[in-house]
Amino acid sequence: MNLYKIFAVVAMMTLTVSNGTQAQQKAEFTLQDVIPGGKNYFKFVPKNMSGLKWWGDVCIRTEAKNIISIDVKNGKEKTLVTLDEVNEALINGEKPYNISYGIRPLQSLMYASMPWHDRKVVTFIQDSDSKKSQKYMIWYDFAQKKIVNMFCLQGENPTNLDFCKENGYMAYTVGNNLYVANKGDYSKMINPVLTGSDNCNDKNGLVYGQSVHRNEFGIYKGTFWSPKGNFLAFYRMDQTMVTDYPQVNTTTRTATLEPDKYPMAGMTSHKVNVGVYDVRSEKTIYLKTTDPTDRYFTNISWSPDEKEIYVIEVNRDQDYAQLIRYDAETGDMIGILYEESHPKYVEPQKPIVFLPWDDSKFIYQSQRDGFNHLYLFDTNKPKEVTLDLIEGMDKYKEYFEVKQLTKGEWLVQDILGFNVQKKEIIIASTEISPLQTNIFSININNGKRTLIGKEDGNHRAQLSESGKYIIDSFNSFSVAREISILPVNGKKGSNIFSATDPMTDKFNMPEITLGTIKAADGKTDLYYRLIKPVDFDPNKKYPAIIYVYGGPHAQLIHNTRFYDARGWDLYMAQKGYVMLTVDSRGSDNRGRDFENCTFRQLGVEEMKDQVEGAKMLQSLPYVDAEKIGVHGWSFGGFMTTNLMLSYPEIFKVGVAGGPVIDWEYYEVMYGERYMDTPQSNPEGYKRSNLKLKAGNLKGRLMIIHGGMDPTCVPQHSYTFLRACINAGTHPDFFIYPESGHNMIGAERVHLHEHITRYFDDFLK
Amino acid sequence: MNLYKIFAVVAMMTLTVSNGTQAQQKAEFTLQDVIPGGKNYFKFVPKNMSGLKWWGDVCIRTEAKNIISIDVKNGKEKTLVTLDEVNEALINGEKPYNISYGIRPLQSLMYASMPWHDRKVVTFIQDSDSKKSQKYMIWYDFAQKKIVNMFCLQGENPTNLDFCKENGYMAYTVGNNLYVANKGDYSKMINPVLTGSDNCNDKNGLVYGQSVHRNEFGIYKGTFWSPKGNFLAFYRMDQTMVTDYPQVNTTTRTATLEPDKYPMAGMTSHKVNVGVYDVRSEKTIYLKTTDPTDRYFTNISWSPDEKEIYVIEVNRDQDYAQLIRYDAETGDMIGILYEESHPKYVEPQKPIVFLPWDDSKFIYQSQRDGFNHLYLFDTNKPKEVTLDLIEGMDKYKEYFEVKQLTKGEWLVQDILGFNVQKKEIIIASTEISPLQTNIFSININNGKRTLIGKEDGNHRAQLSESGKYIIDSFNSFSVAREISILPVNGKKGSNIFSATDPMTDKFNMPEITLGTIKAADGKTDLYYRLIKPVDFDPNKKYPAIIYVYGGPHAQLIHNTRFYDARGWDLYMAQKGYVMLTVDSRGSDNRGRDFENCTFRQLGVEEMKDQVEGAKMLQSLPYVDAEKIGVHGWSFGGFMTTNLMLSYPEIFKVGVAGGPVIDWEYYEVMYGERYMDTPQSNPEGYKRSNLKLKAGNLKGRLMIIHGGMDPTCVPQHSYTFLRACINAGTHPDFFIYPESGHNMIGAERVHLHEHITRYFDDFLK
Repeated sequence: MNLYKIFAVVAMMTLTVSNGTQAQQKAEFTLQDVIPGGKNYFKFVPKNMSGLKWWGDVCIRTEAKNIISIDVKNGKEKTLVTLDEVNEALINGEKPYNISYGIRPLQSLMYASMPWHDRKVVTFIQDSDSKKSQKYMIWYDFAQKKIVNMFCLQGENPTNLDFCKENGYMAYTVGNNLYVANKGDYSKMINPVLTGSDNCNDKNGLVYGQSVHRNEFGIYKGTFWSPKGNFLAFYRMDQTMVTDYPQVNTTTRTATLEPDKYPMAGMTSHKVNVGVYDVRSEKTIYLKTTDPTDRYFTNISWSPDEKEIYVIEVNRDQDYAQLIRYDAETGDMIGILYEESHPKYVEPQKPIVFLPWDDSKFIYQSQRDGFNHLYLFDTNKPKEVTLDLIEGMDKYKEYFEVKQLTKGEWLVQDILGFNVQKKEIIIASTEISPLQTNIFSININNGKRTLIGKEDGNHRAQLSESGKYIIDSFNSFSVAREISILPVNGKKGSNIFSATDPMTDKFNMPEITLGTIKAADGKTDLYYRLIKPVDFDPNKKYPAIIYVYGGPHAQLIHNTRFYDARGWDLYMAQKGYVMLTVDSRGSDNRGRDFENCTFRQLGVEEMKDQVEGAKMLQSLPYVDAEKIGVHGWSFGGFMTTNLMLSYPEIFKVGVAGGPVIDWEYYEVMYGERYMDTPQSNPEGYKRSNLKLKAGNLKGRLMIIHGGMDPTCVPQHSYTFLRACINAGTHPDFFIYPESGHNMIGAERVHLHEHITRYFDDFLK
Repeated sequence: MNLYKIFAVVAMMTLTVSNGTQAQQKAEFTLQDVIPGGKNYFKFVPKNMSGLKWWGDVCIRTEAKNIISIDVKNGKEKTLVTLDEVNEALINGEKPYNISYGIRPLQSLMYASMPWHDRKVVTFIQDSDSKKSQKYMIWYDFAQKKIVNMFCLQGENPTNLDFCKENGYMAYTVGNNLYVANKGDYSKMINPVLTGSDNCNDKNGLVYGQSVHRNEFGIYKGTFWSPKGNFLAFYRMDQTMVTDYPQVNTTTRTATLEPDKYPMAGMTSHKVNVGVYDVRSEKTIYLKTTDPTDRYFTNISWSPDEKEIYVIEVNRDQDYAQLIRYDAETGDMIGILYEESHPKYVEPQKPIVFLPWDDSKFIYQSQRDGFNHLYLFDTNKPKEVTLDLIEGMDKYKEYFEVKQLTKGEWLVQDILGFNVQKKEIIIASTEISPLQTNIFSININNGKRTLIGKEDGNHRAQLSESGKYIIDSFNSFSVAREISILPVNGKKGSNIFSATDPMTDKFNMPEITLGTIKAADGKTDLYYRLIKPVDFDPNKKYPAIIYVYGGPHAQLIHNTRFYDARGWDLYMAQKGYVMLTVDSRGSDNRGRDFENCTFRQLGVEEMKDQVEGAKMLQSLPYVDAEKIGVHGWSFGGFMTTNLMLSYPEIFKVGVAGGPVIDWEYYEVMYGERYMDTPQSNPEGYKRSNLKLKAGNLKGRLMIIHGGMDPTCVPQHSYTFLRACINAGTHPDFFIYPESGHNMIGAERVHLHEHITRYFDDFLK
């Protein structure tokens, strides 16, 4: 599907957006109704059917009191297990293991699992009933109606739980230590005992079994069970050489230091190793990688036979990735399978996946042709390595024969799994529209793609064990929620849940429009979302606010409920503001070159595009061109501050939350990907250093920061205030003490009251 | 002089206040003109003659290029020393000691001293010219025109310099170490080498030779030379057991922790010892005091024969003080000379002073009769100790015969010294008016007091070596500045400097009025200062702002230039605000009971009095009663926040700087004097805990804090924000990162721009 088709789809959607012409006597919503964390928030989001998951090929739904099976053919429900029977067995029944404390009755089956399709067993975690608050992994057999296994997860507050259904072991971490447990009270600590000197402060010296590299490169966990459960690969991170960022908690009697290892751009970073624990021998080896200094070990995966481990390794410059194979028993490097480089950056985010029916073939994902696509490697067919050059100066080396499985100006977002019988890969992709995720099956032999589910909307899916069915959940601008069980052959399945939107039912909603404008480059189409004030009067002049993000990995506009407009945007429209959002160049799901045009100069191109949005606003007859505001958080806080300082003639009032002020203060992994280091790109860092523009402030700018923000450390905002003070300018400022990068819960309502008041004070 | 006379004086002043009836075509002043740190600030303060000091009984003036003598009889000037001759000797002349680096030429003689009345010697500190930046004490003989002595103050950044003219030694500190030096490159470190374990962090573990007890009890230094220079008494403070407050400096590459030992009310405090270093033997002993845990060692002084040391020791409750005599050679306690207690608190602030003509008699200062007065102890006349009770439940024990030297409803502020020939004590007191300091001599035999200098104004004085003359400098509401050399016999001396006020010369000034209102107790008179807007129009309704402090040890109104009105008050009057300040009960210079009515409930009585001021404002026909604002810093920030939360119907806009929010976060010495501990006064702490009133916020309140405020730690403001967030209220906030308790220099102008903008935004 080419770009033309994409925009045709969008044009179609543009015609169907207006739902704001309701009767005007409806009630007004409050921030408590529309902000996550607000008192009535859940009353006004479309109802959902939660707890859906697969038990083999049986769709089940876990809820508080029951686990229910849902017939994939007709959606009929049947109760499999009740909370009462679980608690009867748990409290009164015979148990395979005597613990010295009792077990608390289970409150809900919501988080229970059914790992084995061939066993009528429900697993869950439950606390002991004593003050010891020991946690237990418990297996309940609903055929035998008894507890068939339980074991203790020793240690205080076990986290990062990773259960292996092949061997029945739980891997988990306590503090910085890594454990496995599978029997009674015995837990095995895998790492050596951490001493004071391993921990240059108590919390953060050596870390085992946790996510590393600050969750970049698709990393989200630190343990990796082998396919048959005989080995556990895990991350070990040495942070002792990393500078502490001194976070301060003021809620204690005297404020206390809570230092956080935070490697800043250009500074010394942590070192990562990959360990392999042998469950039977209880021995650990480490992969014999090259020097882990300034090297990222990403996307760990196992060969199906458990003999090999694959790691995608990236250099500190992030312009060079290698897929490397290691011997899982010895840790020896076996060889390089693939290499890829790009003059800007490469960013592997998905581990390789072996075809379940052919151990010699795996799928590698790469955006080397400009869009993330699937490449099938045949390890039976090594080839002589030559240096191939493709468009854009990027290079790659393939050490085996490779077949590109997907291609086009759209991108594969995820591999959900396989339909083994049909030799199909099930993927999520943007093929229908960059504003959507849809599910497709791909025939591995002929490449034919089949859409699963409706074309409309943004889909999330879970694939059944055999790969024959998905649970498909979607919503779109016109559909509040629809959940179906669908066969992967593209045929019709059974709808099991639909919901309407309680907001549109109850409130007088603003008109929301989707459209495109040209980027500042004069050729790229950018999506925008425009919200007119409730009770719109075309003869009035309204103030307008741009809600902006603008950074990589995010996209603010989808074909979803309200086109992703957040509650605050709707609320401001109700208060009489025109609200605009533009997904400028640099943002997600539009391909490599759309994103990386911002390389080494974050903010510059993105701002030009946002200014195009602002100019469009100013051209609207009902917008007061002198009253353009801007608000954003994180990268959007950087954008907001930057826009206020770079285009003060356009932007009069801004609220910047958790802003990046100087990329020198941002962390190594994310920051250097886009900006390189301060040493190698001084000009770029200078151009994006907002402290140097502090003297440009003319309008009203409020900076808001979480007092213990671990992502964008408070140093950003404090140094900006200092720069403004020195320059004689007057930003406003607010801090949410002890809060992190985002305000959540009731505090999020307070935040949006605060933001709203600021615009009301100075923009209205 | 009784209270009636005091108010009669005030009434007289009230009649003379109006100087605002100038022509209206004059220029307007800016914050740069009137805020200390502003670009033109020094252009608009009355000129001064600085560098005045005594050389024996010769008045000298040190300026950049010369040291000049001033004839005490007729004010005639004569150059004694020139900078050129000093530098000729310093750079080219023979020196008694060869240093490996050169010495930088001296830039100014401003900070030079002439310690010996019988030697033509000028002393000063100068740096070496190398990168080593070594400091030297240098003596220049202007009779011989050569450097007659110089020695090095070893170590980086020597501070707390304390020169002993009797022995020629300099005591000083480097880091936490105490040194003495008097020859060449040799410095003697008096304390044992501090090891890591002495310093639980590098900066603040064990501290030698520095001020202790957070500068309370009149303590401002940590070294005390004996009268003949044979011994050096010094403080040693062990802070290892004190909690660190985690201050963070965000100006470094990654923000860095700069912990500060900060004992909070009710928590473990530091321990102080007093050491005595014998210059000849180079040995140190420590006074054998009782357990220094929770004990304050204040007001150290020596007996004239150097055999004894006197310490006024105060218990942690601060309701019991003992004057104790120790043997300086052995450290043994010799005995108690005096004890004083009070159900609220005692607060010794001045060391005892021996009569220069009689080693057996010393003066003790006490406010035991309600006002600080002088008591002459005769150590030759021990008496049987009985427990005497006087009014107000306070108690004292005198172990010697004591004669009260001064008495009355006014207070002695300082002893400047003695006129030995006439057996007179020279003091500063509030006898003329509580709004003034005047200088008096007191005949020790008949108690007769003689006013030295004019009755009008606030006087500062330096006494000559013999005690026959003072350099008197004063200003008042009607006199911008006047400096005279006066004989202490009350006769006329010679005026050596007068200045007019450049503000009133150049600008259209507001009318400033002084007056009194009744305190909320219905009987106490309180002074107020009222400033009307420039170009006042009685038919207009103006917004009004109360500038408040309200805490002990401060008084905002004196008979000085503009009655102490600050530049910002004048500036706001120029912008069209009515400005009021009231010195409420609890403030300084009105005696013990006026101050201590706030005991154990800071804020309560003070606020009632400020509300009286606000009501007066609201009763004025030209004040908009709905537009009353309030601003204050530190204790005044506490008052501002408290007034906004306690009287929201009166106060609509407030700016609170560096506020105390919860006395639990304030330090032990100051805080517990007025509030006792949180453990012993939970109700009082609760009543003054502004977090508990966070939900009352109705108007607009901006909190401002120095990011590294070491006095009122940032925890106050952060926890208040948190309380407001939880209560759903919306204060505004600003922080001056890395700033301390007060903003100084250019930043002070920025601060007042920020404060002004806030009132303009929301009160105007």
